[in-house]
Amino acid sequence: MRRIKLTIAYDGTNYCGFQVQPELPTIEGELNRALGELTGEHIEVIGASRTDSGVHAYGNVAVFDTASSIPADRFPLAIVSFLPEDIRVVESEEVPAEWHPRKCDCIKTYEYSFDCGRVEDPKQRLYTSFSRRVPDIGPMREAAAHLIGEHDFTSFANPSSQILKEGGSAVRNIYSIEIASQLRNESESFGPANTNVIIRITGNGFLYNMVRIIAGTLMNVGTGLWEPERVKTALDAHDRTKAGPTAEARGLTLVGINYNT
Amino acid sequence: MRRIKLTIAYDGTNYCGFQVQPELPTIEGELNRALGELTGEHIEVIGASRTDSGVHAYGNVAVFDTASSIPADRFPLAIVSFLPEDIRVVESEEVPAEWHPRKCDCIKTYEYSFDCGRVEDPKQRLYTSFSRRVPDIGPMREAAAHLIGEHDFTSFANPSSQILKEGGSAVRNIYSIEIASQLRNESESFGPANTNVIIRITGNGFLYNMVRIIAGTLMNVGTGLWEPERVKTALDAHDRTKAGPTAEARGLTLVGINYNT
Repeated sequence: MRRIKLTIAYDGTNYCGFQVQPELPTIEGELNRALGELTGEHIEVIGASRTDSGVHAYGNVAVFDTASSIPADRFPLAIVSFLPEDIRVVESEEVPAEWHPRKCDCIKTYEYSFDCGRVEDPKQRLYTSFSRRVPDIGPMREAAAHLIGEHDFTSFANPSSQILKEGGSAVRNIYSIEIASQLRNESESFGPANTNVIIRITGNGFLYNMVRIIAGTLMNVGTGLWEPERVKTALDAHDRTKAGPTAEARGLTLVGINYNT
Repeated sequence: MRRIKLTIAYDGTNYCGFQVQPELPTIEGELNRALGELTGEHIEVIGASRTDSGVHAYGNVAVFDTASSIPADRFPLAIVSFLPEDIRVVESEEVPAEWHPRKCDCIKTYEYSFDCGRVEDPKQRLYTSFSRRVPDIGPMREAAAHLIGEHDFTSFANPSSQILKEGGSAVRNIYSIEIASQLRNESESFGPANTNVIIRITGNGFLYNMVRIIAGTLMNVGTGLWEPERVKTALDAHDRTKAGPTAEARGLTLVGINYNT
């Protein structure tokens, strides 16, 4: 038996999240089925990140064990015909038999995208959250600075989080939050001249809905509803009701996971 | 009665093209229905460009006549609730009663996008055509130069074109063809490091499938299948069988229409 590590990209629009659920379309369910059909074995992948319903990925990670003779780097092409067109394996390699994608130190990178303008762009609607107000990213950056470093993020987690319910730690380390703003169709007289606002967050791990709550909270600051300092107050309160709203799933993409080992 | 000009953006994935067809989902059909529901009138829009099934737009144009009192610039917001989320009106204004979007001089701009790499990016699949080979854009630009200017484009038109069947002219004027190549995720270790190749074409009008045949033909050149000069030979032949394949609808977007009047 060999353990194979897969890097997986998907459009999460049509799935009830990564984690397998009976009778529902999930990324994990499709991977298990496709790998089973390809190898002739019963396959159950172990995923790194259980992304929510509607969330996308460029680089989620999963491993599985196989006795098949398919060379370790050939899975991206071998599996294409067995997967729906909104899921792709982009890389594959052999890892040690005991390597577990949720039990290794890693850096996760997420991106949250807003489409901001008078009318939403239909071609962006599946991968961004629409905002009629264009936020000011200066105050958003000021607010984001309060979240950098090791903190208890209870205020920025969905209280129904399994980890928190079981008494697990809400302490996480955010390494960086970059906020960029880009005017589309800038030099043209065509189409919706909307602005994309992209929040890119890296950290050693994220609680349930944490990136979406950070995005919704920073948007409160960017649109002038909140002063930047209120984010510090919310963080220190360790109380979900003190942070802003949970931004829509469709705007979130798990960009990738870098393992230190 | 006033004549209102609409600028329309849409994701064409789920539609059988712009032009209304009985029992089938079309952009025109949705506009007629939505405007009818909003105004309480029977509305039949006149569209500028009858984009094919699966083709997208940032800035197609249509006009309609109404006796409603809705201010001319308010249609983008007024109609939102009546349209499906993959169609949006982005601008509206009053035009003279005799103004017709297919009977005025204009410059049309189209973009054709390819997603090039080992494995396609699921988040780009609806708006690009996938190519496992990354084309060399130098020869593509050389080939494109032969198409600039006023020519008989019979070789680059679908022979079932209604205009050609009725003995209409195949002469069109292409003002520019810009070809750009962009490596995604360049500075990162994440996700599919694919290349987007974008062909942007402006002209005074285009025959049925003309942009898609130009895109497919230039791709033949970019991947080394054809020498650039063969595009000149194909153009001069006035014979559809001498040009390259018709690229997929999903990669095409009508960026906008600039009217000179």
